[in-house]
Amino acid sequence: MAKTDWKSEAKSLKKKVKKLKARVMGTEIGAATAAAPKAKKAKPVSPLAPKGGFPKLPLIAGVEFAAVEAGVRYQNRKDVMLVRLAPDTAVAGVFTTSSTRSGCVRDCQTKLAAKVPAGTGAAIIVNSGNSNAFTGKVGDQAVAAVTGSVAEALGIPASRVFSSSTGVIGEPLPYEKITARIPDLVAALREDAIEMAAHAMMTTDTFPKGAAATVQGDGGPIHIAGIAKGSGMIAPDMATMLVYIFTDAKIAPAALQKMLSRNVGATFNSITVDSDTSTSDTLLLAATGKSPAAPVTGAVAKAFESALRDVMRDLAHQVIRDGEGATKFVEIRVTGARDDADAARVAFAIANSPLVKTAIAGQDPNWGRIVAAIGKSGAEADRDRLTIRFGDILVAEKGWRNPKYREEDGAAYMLGEELVIAVDLGLGRAKRSVWTCDLTNRYIEINADYRS
Amino acid sequence: MAKTDWKSEAKSLKKKVKKLKARVMGTEIGAATAAAPKAKKAKPVSPLAPKGGFPKLPLIAGVEFAAVEAGVRYQNRKDVMLVRLAPDTAVAGVFTTSSTRSGCVRDCQTKLAAKVPAGTGAAIIVNSGNSNAFTGKVGDQAVAAVTGSVAEALGIPASRVFSSSTGVIGEPLPYEKITARIPDLVAALREDAIEMAAHAMMTTDTFPKGAAATVQGDGGPIHIAGIAKGSGMIAPDMATMLVYIFTDAKIAPAALQKMLSRNVGATFNSITVDSDTSTSDTLLLAATGKSPAAPVTGAVAKAFESALRDVMRDLAHQVIRDGEGATKFVEIRVTGARDDADAARVAFAIANSPLVKTAIAGQDPNWGRIVAAIGKSGAEADRDRLTIRFGDILVAEKGWRNPKYREEDGAAYMLGEELVIAVDLGLGRAKRSVWTCDLTNRYIEINADYRS
Repeated sequence: MAKTDWKSEAKSLKKKVKKLKARVMGTEIGAATAAAPKAKKAKPVSPLAPKGGFPKLPLIAGVEFAAVEAGVRYQNRKDVMLVRLAPDTAVAGVFTTSSTRSGCVRDCQTKLAAKVPAGTGAAIIVNSGNSNAFTGKVGDQAVAAVTGSVAEALGIPASRVFSSSTGVIGEPLPYEKITARIPDLVAALREDAIEMAAHAMMTTDTFPKGAAATVQGDGGPIHIAGIAKGSGMIAPDMATMLVYIFTDAKIAPAALQKMLSRNVGATFNSITVDSDTSTSDTLLLAATGKSPAAPVTGAVAKAFESALRDVMRDLAHQVIRDGEGATKFVEIRVTGARDDADAARVAFAIANSPLVKTAIAGQDPNWGRIVAAIGKSGAEADRDRLTIRFGDILVAEKGWRNPKYREEDGAAYMLGEELVIAVDLGLGRAKRSVWTCDLTNRYIEINADYRS
Repeated sequence: MAKTDWKSEAKSLKKKVKKLKARVMGTEIGAATAAAPKAKKAKPVSPLAPKGGFPKLPLIAGVEFAAVEAGVRYQNRKDVMLVRLAPDTAVAGVFTTSSTRSGCVRDCQTKLAAKVPAGTGAAIIVNSGNSNAFTGKVGDQAVAAVTGSVAEALGIPASRVFSSSTGVIGEPLPYEKITARIPDLVAALREDAIEMAAHAMMTTDTFPKGAAATVQGDGGPIHIAGIAKGSGMIAPDMATMLVYIFTDAKIAPAALQKMLSRNVGATFNSITVDSDTSTSDTLLLAATGKSPAAPVTGAVAKAFESALRDVMRDLAHQVIRDGEGATKFVEIRVTGARDDADAARVAFAIANSPLVKTAIAGQDPNWGRIVAAIGKSGAEADRDRLTIRFGDILVAEKGWRNPKYREEDGAAYMLGEELVIAVDLGLGRAKRSVWTCDLTNRYIEINADYRS
């Protein structure tokens, strides 16, 4: 074995130390330029990812999936996925309210509003790497080209092909890369490829997200299976990221839409990573009606809606668990508000406060910042009626610190990976829970380097 | 000279690399606990600090300053400052609108509302290290004790003693440490100690902030000198951080208050570091009337107000230049909005977007995130009328990227320390400029470690 040259090793290590120090001080970020792209690091999976990996999802009769490598932006990974939905599938959707929403979103909205009969079947096509947002008329043409190609390949009207694009905003979508692969996608369609589809739509996600439920219907089981993508730019406003949920239930489109809309508030509209709302948020729910069970009504409808809400909440929580740079999964639980709007204001003011989120990253039970966030929220609040708890620990009440509260207890609590911060305003009966994550250096790194 | 042991040096460097790597990955922040406080690093001065250090401020006749080390929280530095104002000084103020504002703020508001005649003189006392916010009735008693002691020592009514506290929220203020030093403060009062006072109120600030102006009055010059503290928790709402402005102008309290209130919108209420509003925001303006010039009216009043606004804007900009972790000073300039409210919504949505701010930190001309921020703002916006510029560079117009825009130009522009991001909505004539900074790892470090 050759003798180690410790001198030159020490010199090279010194350089490494210098470089790392610069990075810690944030100066390397300052020195990066878009002109000099850096090699991407392998993404470690979020520490908050559900244990056991992607769940086993039931097959949904009438739904098939495929995914291919089209090279839209990413290389060496699948980046386009196609879903074929059987004839008579009811489709419902909720979308971002952004005034700069993408061409795909506008197109989906127009198609759903047209209420085309479901007899022909339908399809969903999604690409990652480019959001085709703020790409003007060229962007609209790209949507027409992609959905038109899918329609032709599957022999269905373009009015029943829904599309989503997620990734960089403002770059023209190289749609020919997608249309060129549609024959391959169609040839690869399989009932059991939902996990591959979940993978293909990931951008800064570190794991694919899936959730499922089964409900006993009249005459047989009804299955629900959903997938989601989302990690940053997460502050849904009437919808969120990209989410596709499939069921074999028999249910009319109008009833399906109502059920979906009713449950968005307490699920996808109750999560925030960074208070930034995407231009591409899309949530589609498709019901094929292929279950042997009778059409969903009465008690079965209630059970179905409850199971659907569970799947939606599970997927929403997984998005927070994959929040960019997240190391803590945090529930902000507000009670005692004068009305629902105030409860939401307080919950989101806390959940979006950079100072609260950095304190959580530092495992610092800095409840003063929670007080400040409540104060700025604009909601009615009375200092002398406020109660703040970390989990079961009573931190503050009646306008000041609980005399029995010990900082060590708060600090010990903050070491956990799953935290509940509970605030009671003591003014009324309205309440709201929202879910968020901490704000770490990783968030900054991911987002300062995103396009380079 | 002893021979270097390169082997052991290499080994120790390896450990350093490992530690630094962990830090870069954000894991050290995750491992820190409040129970194990770390040694404070020496704070480097913000790279955006005005060159040349603290400006030379004119003496204001009738205003004296003193500062002492009281050890409220910080050691080995001055942390309490006192200002004595001559008899007949008019005082005006604007305060945080937080519903959890501190006892000091409530006390100042009550005293100003009482309109006590100015004949007796007045005083301002400020401590750093503890904000005495959310400390309940004990906090109110602390305010009474501190302002009462100052009143007694100076022989003025307590109703003319204004106080501010800045620092950690929710900890009882050890006010005896302050009252014990009041005789020393009174003994040390000097006309030329304004810089020392600016130092004493710093918390996470990296430099003391001062600004001045002189106006030609009828019969002599009128001077204005102001100081400010603020670095994080900066999103003023009708006021900001701690700011004290002094003038020798002769002007009635009501006119002074109107002038102050009128100019808060375009100055202190147009800056944001992190969208978090402080519980302690206080802006006081004191006019001693000791200038030889005649009372301020007519053209002089106009010139005076304009100079006052310049001082206010200068101090507001310095707060952004000292934004926690800031490496860029950024103006968001919105024009063409339907109305003032929409212009403000768009400007603050961009200025507060973590994704925009991290892109700026990474010197990435990621204008797609600006589009997304406009979209989520809730303001009326039409994709096909939007124009976006970086400085003079036309980036996007009419719903998509300017065909002549070259990414290299945007990237080169982002290397600058002072940036202007201009958005024209193309819908009306309303406009608003706000100032912000980038979001870097340093912000996270400062705020994850703040109390430990």
